[in-house]
Amino acid sequence: MNLRAMEPEQLRRLHEEAAQAYARFQARGLTLNMERGKPCAEQLDLALGVLEALHARSEFANSRGDDSRNYGIWNGLREMREIFSDMMGVPAGDIILGNNSSLQMMFDCISQGYTHGYGGCEPWCRQGEIKFLCPAPGYDRHFAVTEYFGIRMIPVPMLKTGPDIDLVEQLVQDPSVKGIWCVPKYSNPTGITYSDETVRRFAALHPAAEDFRIFWDNAYCVHDLTDTPDTLLDLYSACEQAGTLDHVLFFASTSKISFPGAGVAALGASPANIAALKKRITIQTIGPDKLNQLRHILFLHDIHGVKQLMQGHRAILEPKFNIVLDTLEKALGDMDIARWSHPNGGYFVNLDVMNGCAKRVVSLCSEAGLTLTGAGATYPYGNDPNDSNIRIAPSFPPEEELKEAMQLLCICIVLAATEKLLAERA
Amino acid sequence: MNLRAMEPEQLRRLHEEAAQAYARFQARGLTLNMERGKPCAEQLDLALGVLEALHARSEFANSRGDDSRNYGIWNGLREMREIFSDMMGVPAGDIILGNNSSLQMMFDCISQGYTHGYGGCEPWCRQGEIKFLCPAPGYDRHFAVTEYFGIRMIPVPMLKTGPDIDLVEQLVQDPSVKGIWCVPKYSNPTGITYSDETVRRFAALHPAAEDFRIFWDNAYCVHDLTDTPDTLLDLYSACEQAGTLDHVLFFASTSKISFPGAGVAALGASPANIAALKKRITIQTIGPDKLNQLRHILFLHDIHGVKQLMQGHRAILEPKFNIVLDTLEKALGDMDIARWSHPNGGYFVNLDVMNGCAKRVVSLCSEAGLTLTGAGATYPYGNDPNDSNIRIAPSFPPEEELKEAMQLLCICIVLAATEKLLAERA
Repeated sequence: MNLRAMEPEQLRRLHEEAAQAYARFQARGLTLNMERGKPCAEQLDLALGVLEALHARSEFANSRGDDSRNYGIWNGLREMREIFSDMMGVPAGDIILGNNSSLQMMFDCISQGYTHGYGGCEPWCRQGEIKFLCPAPGYDRHFAVTEYFGIRMIPVPMLKTGPDIDLVEQLVQDPSVKGIWCVPKYSNPTGITYSDETVRRFAALHPAAEDFRIFWDNAYCVHDLTDTPDTLLDLYSACEQAGTLDHVLFFASTSKISFPGAGVAALGASPANIAALKKRITIQTIGPDKLNQLRHILFLHDIHGVKQLMQGHRAILEPKFNIVLDTLEKALGDMDIARWSHPNGGYFVNLDVMNGCAKRVVSLCSEAGLTLTGAGATYPYGNDPNDSNIRIAPSFPPEEELKEAMQLLCICIVLAATEKLLAERA
Repeated sequence: MNLRAMEPEQLRRLHEEAAQAYARFQARGLTLNMERGKPCAEQLDLALGVLEALHARSEFANSRGDDSRNYGIWNGLREMREIFSDMMGVPAGDIILGNNSSLQMMFDCISQGYTHGYGGCEPWCRQGEIKFLCPAPGYDRHFAVTEYFGIRMIPVPMLKTGPDIDLVEQLVQDPSVKGIWCVPKYSNPTGITYSDETVRRFAALHPAAEDFRIFWDNAYCVHDLTDTPDTLLDLYSACEQAGTLDHVLFFASTSKISFPGAGVAALGASPANIAALKKRITIQTIGPDKLNQLRHILFLHDIHGVKQLMQGHRAILEPKFNIVLDTLEKALGDMDIARWSHPNGGYFVNLDVMNGCAKRVVSLCSEAGLTLTGAGATYPYGNDPNDSNIRIAPSFPPEEELKEAMQLLCICIVLAATEKLLAERA
């Protein structure tokens, strides 16, 4: 039952059925939310041991000069940097720990470029208009940071292999292009993991701007959801070989491992970048929260602890992703009015509805009590040129709510599509 | 035995005695440290209950939409803002909680002026040379932040009533003067609390620059050490009456209440400033560490809990301050070669040795194993014009070590003074 091939009469009937189903949903006054990639309460319970960890240990008080409760240790505790080292593929000595937010560290690194510059170049604020490449659809909060600093955003299409690397290679010939946002594994929202070739070509980039920086936000580096996880080529080694390590800033956090609001964030970089950031960070603060690092060290122990914990997350998330995929398949599988991703990890299912329909779908959902990520949010300036992309975030709602939300979403997709097709034929 | 009135022969004898005492100290190979205002381990033990607090409570998981473990609540938990409200004299609704460092919040507020501007004015980075007023001696980390942003620092002498407010009123007529650093209570390092008149005149300031901001770092607002604590006039109310609230940014933290490395920091401001900072902060992070706030709420309860805890700090710190004051009095009381403060609170004793002797004293101490705050560090650009100011930080060393450190310091002061007086007479 391909909708594009339907007779108007059939379409009208389908529209009418969808409208009735929608009205029934609306009448129920539901409040459903799939707006953001928030872990659910059951996921957070997996890490309750983090809170108990410190209770059982008082070593932080023993060595006077190195008391984790006191000031100091600007780059954080070694054992925690080692855990991140294994997660990020960056040597522990080249990792700086922050507090609870890797986004804050990215913001600060953009700030650093803006106020002080990278690689001995003029600060970005003194270079006239500068630009950032924004693989799209992408992470709205990345785009918000660049927009806040008045940096012009250039969208780069996301292919199955990652950002269109031909285009990236071409665009970085412009010396006013200063960076690119990347979520290289289980990309937000497409779920794509960059291909080995894409990673190698990132390592081999020769941008015109010496102060060009790749913001490598490896937010989902250990966030597998299936038995066939993606693997991401190690950019650090590739850059080391290519002599381009100064081009990259690596980020990760435990926000979706332990607690979104109370995890530990990390930044990795080349020795030269670390030295520049050290100057900034040691003036900015007398050290990160080391007690929270200690809690995480005692609970996670090492990368094996992390991986074990991630199995628990998978056990909760995989069924939710399956609800999303099954509902879409059952409701829309043969209609040819939507395409969606089948990610092996991460936090999102990427949905593309008919061109010109995404805003309408999100608005229909909203009027029936289901909040989705705003249509267009995954594009720079909120501007999805096709008005087709919708980000589905299945993690937060309980399964029963998620089923209802997905049914409603599918009804809204049919409603918007039939509206559009009928209008086109009128 | 006023040294300035001594005969050369007498001076030489005193010098020789001091040199011998110094040599005995040096031979012992001590390692003593009074460099920074770090709380000691016993102080940190006072707040161990913070770490146990969350262990006993699981309410954070109950209300799904408002789980303190998850993302969100950009300005922090209400109950913690209420505790700061009572500490800072700023309404809880106009307080933003950060993570563990108020310095980081100050750095971010300077950043905000630099990259985005205040009060609708051009960002500071687009205004050519700008200046900050720096009451001196003052807090070296404040000065480091302004220096990092290339902001020209104008020293303002500290009087017994606070910064020379006549001079401040005059200097703010310069539209390139954009702010002033203030530690209004138990000022670092002088221990001075601003007089009521000084506070009122700060509230009544009419700077030429609309984007002028007072950085009111109330780091020691509840840090009394005697039965005759200072009281600081409420700047918030004074500004509200004068209609100048937009001029002030208020800061405080629990760094010297609970844990220096793992406390909670806060920023208070006028509704207009809060609105501008909200825009920045909600782009910078998805929220501060609310679990640490929860721990503090459960342990401190309210301002009474804070005050009770501060009694414990006083019990540990007051004897240390007395060791410093008694040793200075006993060793140097009648020599007329040094003056020092008798603070009612805070973390420092402010010492002024003979002009031209501070660097020499600090270096002599260092060579005998005692690390002090670098001479000059309390002045912008590390430049103490008289080379006379030394900051004594008695909190960290155990009492026995502190006694030794103070004896050594006094010997070095005599050594440097006799050297200087003998050289003058030669």
